[in-house]
Amino acid sequence: MVVLSEGLTQILIPVTAFIGIGFALLQWLLVSRVRVSSADHTEADNGYRKSLMGDSELENGVQSVEVTNKCTEIQHAISVGATSFLFTEYKYLTIFMGVFGAIIFVFLGSVKGFSTQSEPCTYNEGNICKPALANAIFSTVAFLLGALTSVLSGFLGMKIATYANARTTLEARKGIGKAFVIAFRSGAVMGFLLSANGLLVLYITINLFKLYYGDDWEGLYESITGYGLGGSSMALFGRVGGGIYTKAADVGADLVGKVEHNIPEDDPRNPAVIADNVGDNVGDIAGMGSDLFGSYAESSCAALFVASISSFGTNHDHTAMSYPLIISSMGIVVCLITTLFATDLFEIKNVSQIEPSLKRQLLISTILMTAGIAIVSFTALPSEFTLYNFGAKKVVKNWHLFFCVAIGLWAGLAIGYITEYYTSNAYSPVQDVADSCRTGASTNVIFGLALGYKSVIIPVFAIAIAIYVSFSLAAMYGIAVAALGMLSTMATSLAIDAYGPISDNAGGIAEMAGMRHEIRERTDALDAAGNTTAAIGKGFAIGSAALVSLALFGAYVSRAGIKTVNVMTPKVFIGLIVGAMLPYWFSAMTMKSVGSAALKMVEEVRRQFNTIPGLLEGRAKPDYANCVKISTDASLKEMIPPGALVLLTPLIAGTFFGVETLAGVLAGSLISGVQVAISASNTGGAWDNAKKYIEAGTTPHAVSLGPKGSDAHKAAVIGDTVGDPLKDTSGPSLNILIKLMAVESLVFAPFFAAHGGLIFKLL
Amino acid sequence: MVVLSEGLTQILIPVTAFIGIGFALLQWLLVSRVRVSSADHTEADNGYRKSLMGDSELENGVQSVEVTNKCTEIQHAISVGATSFLFTEYKYLTIFMGVFGAIIFVFLGSVKGFSTQSEPCTYNEGNICKPALANAIFSTVAFLLGALTSVLSGFLGMKIATYANARTTLEARKGIGKAFVIAFRSGAVMGFLLSANGLLVLYITINLFKLYYGDDWEGLYESITGYGLGGSSMALFGRVGGGIYTKAADVGADLVGKVEHNIPEDDPRNPAVIADNVGDNVGDIAGMGSDLFGSYAESSCAALFVASISSFGTNHDHTAMSYPLIISSMGIVVCLITTLFATDLFEIKNVSQIEPSLKRQLLISTILMTAGIAIVSFTALPSEFTLYNFGAKKVVKNWHLFFCVAIGLWAGLAIGYITEYYTSNAYSPVQDVADSCRTGASTNVIFGLALGYKSVIIPVFAIAIAIYVSFSLAAMYGIAVAALGMLSTMATSLAIDAYGPISDNAGGIAEMAGMRHEIRERTDALDAAGNTTAAIGKGFAIGSAALVSLALFGAYVSRAGIKTVNVMTPKVFIGLIVGAMLPYWFSAMTMKSVGSAALKMVEEVRRQFNTIPGLLEGRAKPDYANCVKISTDASLKEMIPPGALVLLTPLIAGTFFGVETLAGVLAGSLISGVQVAISASNTGGAWDNAKKYIEAGTTPHAVSLGPKGSDAHKAAVIGDTVGDPLKDTSGPSLNILIKLMAVESLVFAPFFAAHGGLIFKLL
Repeated sequence: MVVLSEGLTQILIPVTAFIGIGFALLQWLLVSRVRVSSADHTEADNGYRKSLMGDSELENGVQSVEVTNKCTEIQHAISVGATSFLFTEYKYLTIFMGVFGAIIFVFLGSVKGFSTQSEPCTYNEGNICKPALANAIFSTVAFLLGALTSVLSGFLGMKIATYANARTTLEARKGIGKAFVIAFRSGAVMGFLLSANGLLVLYITINLFKLYYGDDWEGLYESITGYGLGGSSMALFGRVGGGIYTKAADVGADLVGKVEHNIPEDDPRNPAVIADNVGDNVGDIAGMGSDLFGSYAESSCAALFVASISSFGTNHDHTAMSYPLIISSMGIVVCLITTLFATDLFEIKNVSQIEPSLKRQLLISTILMTAGIAIVSFTALPSEFTLYNFGAKKVVKNWHLFFCVAIGLWAGLAIGYITEYYTSNAYSPVQDVADSCRTGASTNVIFGLALGYKSVIIPVFAIAIAIYVSFSLAAMYGIAVAALGMLSTMATSLAIDAYGPISDNAGGIAEMAGMRHEIRERTDALDAAGNTTAAIGKGFAIGSAALVSLALFGAYVSRAGIKTVNVMTPKVFIGLIVGAMLPYWFSAMTMKSVGSAALKMVEEVRRQFNTIPGLLEGRAKPDYANCVKISTDASLKEMIPPGALVLLTPLIAGTFFGVETLAGVLAGSLISGVQVAISASNTGGAWDNAKKYIEAGTTPHAVSLGPKGSDAHKAAVIGDTVGDPLKDTSGPSLNILIKLMAVESLVFAPFFAAHGGLIFKLL
Repeated sequence: MVVLSEGLTQILIPVTAFIGIGFALLQWLLVSRVRVSSADHTEADNGYRKSLMGDSELENGVQSVEVTNKCTEIQHAISVGATSFLFTEYKYLTIFMGVFGAIIFVFLGSVKGFSTQSEPCTYNEGNICKPALANAIFSTVAFLLGALTSVLSGFLGMKIATYANARTTLEARKGIGKAFVIAFRSGAVMGFLLSANGLLVLYITINLFKLYYGDDWEGLYESITGYGLGGSSMALFGRVGGGIYTKAADVGADLVGKVEHNIPEDDPRNPAVIADNVGDNVGDIAGMGSDLFGSYAESSCAALFVASISSFGTNHDHTAMSYPLIISSMGIVVCLITTLFATDLFEIKNVSQIEPSLKRQLLISTILMTAGIAIVSFTALPSEFTLYNFGAKKVVKNWHLFFCVAIGLWAGLAIGYITEYYTSNAYSPVQDVADSCRTGASTNVIFGLALGYKSVIIPVFAIAIAIYVSFSLAAMYGIAVAALGMLSTMATSLAIDAYGPISDNAGGIAEMAGMRHEIRERTDALDAAGNTTAAIGKGFAIGSAALVSLALFGAYVSRAGIKTVNVMTPKVFIGLIVGAMLPYWFSAMTMKSVGSAALKMVEEVRRQFNTIPGLLEGRAKPDYANCVKISTDASLKEMIPPGALVLLTPLIAGTFFGVETLAGVLAGSLISGVQVAISASNTGGAWDNAKKYIEAGTTPHAVSLGPKGSDAHKAAVIGDTVGDPLKDTSGPSLNILIKLMAVESLVFAPFFAAHGGLIFKLL
């Protein structure tokens, strides 16, 4: 009945993962052909030996070699700053991993009093499953593996980005098309490494765990959910810490540099400029990498868990069980083909082609993947099977699952396109925001907030339709695979997403190295498209997070043994309203953190301008390292309270108020968080591009608002600064809030079901 | 068993209503002792004849009579503008009432095909109830009565406020204490008139309907819910239309006057200044009046409906049925005593006593009312009875209901106090926001938004606790009476709320009449406290709206015959997520409307400054009327789309997607709207007071940020302007969104249950 045999599946999955990794390395090789200077320290840091640049072009009358050396020097400083921040962050996270791993072990072990006795299975009736203690141990191990993979994903992304930034700058001398290809290839390195690596580690973990669990798939996939928890909890700290870092530096640099001393963005005289560029790499790159890896790990875990208690699991149908992994494998192949369209089949000749080219990537990958999903659904699944549906069994056909995955995929495309419409300065929404700068910063902020609110409408309908269709066709499994569908083209989404901060850094390096004005214009054009793709990436991240957390939520409800989550009961309702409040609490914390950290940065930058003689005139060098240190310290300190809020809420709600209230909290934070996150990301993206629209002055309307330094432009800068923490700190962290609370609840569900609800038990 | 006899109840309710009205008239009489000029047109307009002012004080060296005449003239202009706006608005609303009344009649009539046959009752088994057609007719009549009462409430409030504003200004010459008493008394006139009037009309309507319905209380109170719908739908247009009016004028006036021409707020040279002052009366006063009347009407209707299908109704226990009305009667008595504390027992001697005095009002009324609730609960209720609880019956004791009402009341106080903490410039949150102005408008906006998000936390917990306790003790009836508890001291809340815009207007008149700087300082101090009380009032409005809409939601679920509203079903879940999106959609519309209307105003003001020679120098008079017209036209045009969104959503969701999806939409919009509304109101209030904090310069810290015109002050003005539409348009309108959708669903529930869900029926 099933075309794909077990053996073939076992081979196909790791093979595609290796193909993905190989393709990533190939792209890296192509990027490395752009030579940076031979200065020894750089080479040692990046681990590559390069010959001296041979180009003979002139930059502002300065020998090209000098410019190249300058670029290399800056790249080195950024790389060192980013590496040092991440290592410091990982030190903290190692402690957290140890503590939280112990909590998982103790809580889950205590469910059956640390008994080593095997027990009757919960779902697979009549069979014997492994003891609860084994689940505690393996969940902890899976948690640690997920955490490590997440950290690795973020770190690799950062390494690639700091390797690519100066190369993009140097390539920009040859033209916009060349620079675009370098930035995009570097993004692809990250995209493919992450998706292939995530798939591979999950595949290996499952196979290793199977050595112990054998036929007890229920216990096996219950433990595997720890992998998602590990991935997501690291992502939380990565996003929040990185987000605070990048925005504290950015806001701090802008407030003193642009506003007080009227020097351009990324000017090397600004002491916070290196910290600002480091921030792009640790926040937008490493944070985003961990985040999407987390979504991927969680949606796979949610799908696998539901499958394991459905007929796939009870019949031990190995190929059908692996359906989520095969979908991801197919995604790697599809994205590989898609990437060739951007790097080899089409060439960017001018600025106006950048955005359409990136949009085309989304469309091509979606169309190809639809065919891919059909192939996988009709070869890997039996034509009919039953899925677990809150105690009942639901009969489902393979083409139902095709529709579930496909609708998730296309909903992702719809969200991407709508996000582009609301954040790109090629369309009227951003142009209206820019126009409102005529009457000052207030109207700019009012129009920007209104734009963000409005941009929520269609994505929410897209998510709602995807949920309705996949839920109706295949219950919770349908939701989980719809999420996987949205994430199946992750390699491409990550590529176009990472492209943004790389271009941003490239622009910074061009400015700091004192390159020709043209070069900066080229990188700015790349960067403007990057703002839009960053917003699209955030749209994907939040859309998939909504589906993933609903799937996890469903798995949690099943595992906690809740019959119905009835809104009309006080326990659930108070959970809902408090859950809906959490995104606000969390945003308040992170935004205030950015504000406070930025104020510290402002003081330091002012201090340097006041105490270092000749700094403003360019005769002295600022103390970049001190600003990097301030951002590092502030972000690491400030990431703890929001992290604690997210991680402690499910534990407190479950332990004291019980599984129903916790179900309410999860549903409330999900439906409210989606709105806050989408509006925050798009508002910020729109403000940034409204500013860029005025600066670029490519239409008569834009010219009438500019130039740089005009009143309208000043108003636009204020909007941009307000948008920074919204779009890069609080907004994107909210995805993780809703996913992480759901996966944490799922992992701890046996404990809450056994021992939770202390307060109501007492009353 | 019950102390209060039916006859006594029938007498007590109207008597307290008349006492309330009498007390309001007494306060009016006291306010009217402050004489304004005898200029004939004013007298005719206000309907009172006054003798010429006899005061001999000098104002800026000008004879007092002249100043008084000037005040009278301005008061007249404001009153004419406000009256003309409201009449134009009511013209539109009359059409709406006709159309929507017809929709109610047709939809409800069609439930049983317009049959005139009596039918077996739904809840009161074995008895015969009136035909569905009668319910259609009486619901329509109740809708029209509610709408008229709401319109009357708003109109009366506006009349009182425009009568009191100039009197407060004139009284401010005698000192801050005198001015405070006038402003507060005027607020009390509105508070008592509205609460007494609302109670009286409801009481009369019930008794008139009873002439037809006789013993069919099920049908009677089902029809009465139309009263709530009428009240709330008028309130929606009042809030939205008034909100757009006031903020378009305010933002427009500020952007040209303060920012471009650097003339003070309320300067008579600014053409939009009269429109701005009119706005306070039509938005903050008339809108707020209609809003709170709507909340009151809805919570009474929700409680009465649930009671009618509980043992109170089936046993025809008249006194217990009237429990909600008796609570409101007691509230009027308690508020009457409370008012005396502010007007007669204590005297305001300096600025710092204003806020404590207003806070004391809240505390005194809450303490007295707690005793009042105890009296009512133990005299009007049998010691044990059964309440309808989604098909089941719940046995409840009278002291349970005492706790339900009391927790609602105290939750209201908690929300009031917390709101004060976050919006008053006496505490660190607003001072921090003011401090962030040092680094410019961006940090001010970031800190302000974060403050608003943070201010949501405790109110949501307060609401959650109130819901949990009252829900657990007495199911949906408990929630409804908790809402009534929060609203029981409405006369006092409205008094301190109306006090704000009256003081704001008084300041405007002082400035325009060219009075001494001291006078303006006094009215500014009154106004700063007014910003805080306005935020408190909005906190009450949203807190009570949350409880009211939950009660209405419960009544809807009962009436639509839904067994459970299970989050884990696709129909409900898509409703939840789309419902949670609606507050964003609605806010986007209203904020954009304010922005666009403000831009039109800016153009007109600029046009006048450019074309009227000598206007800026004070040698020519601006064309105030044209600005009033622009605000009027824009707000009436712009209020239609958001109004349509709110009113059509339940009709579309119920008709096409059915009762379960609609239940999801209601729950989603409730839990999300609460957060958006609270954060919007408090953010706006905090920005306004941060600006006032810098302007007043009463502490060394404030002095270091000022004076007016400093960079920090300019940044604060930008925040204030951004906050205007948040706190006065989109935020407070959201209360109505969540209540109105719930009450509309309740009224149309029989239709949706019979004919709804077309799309799912087709699939």
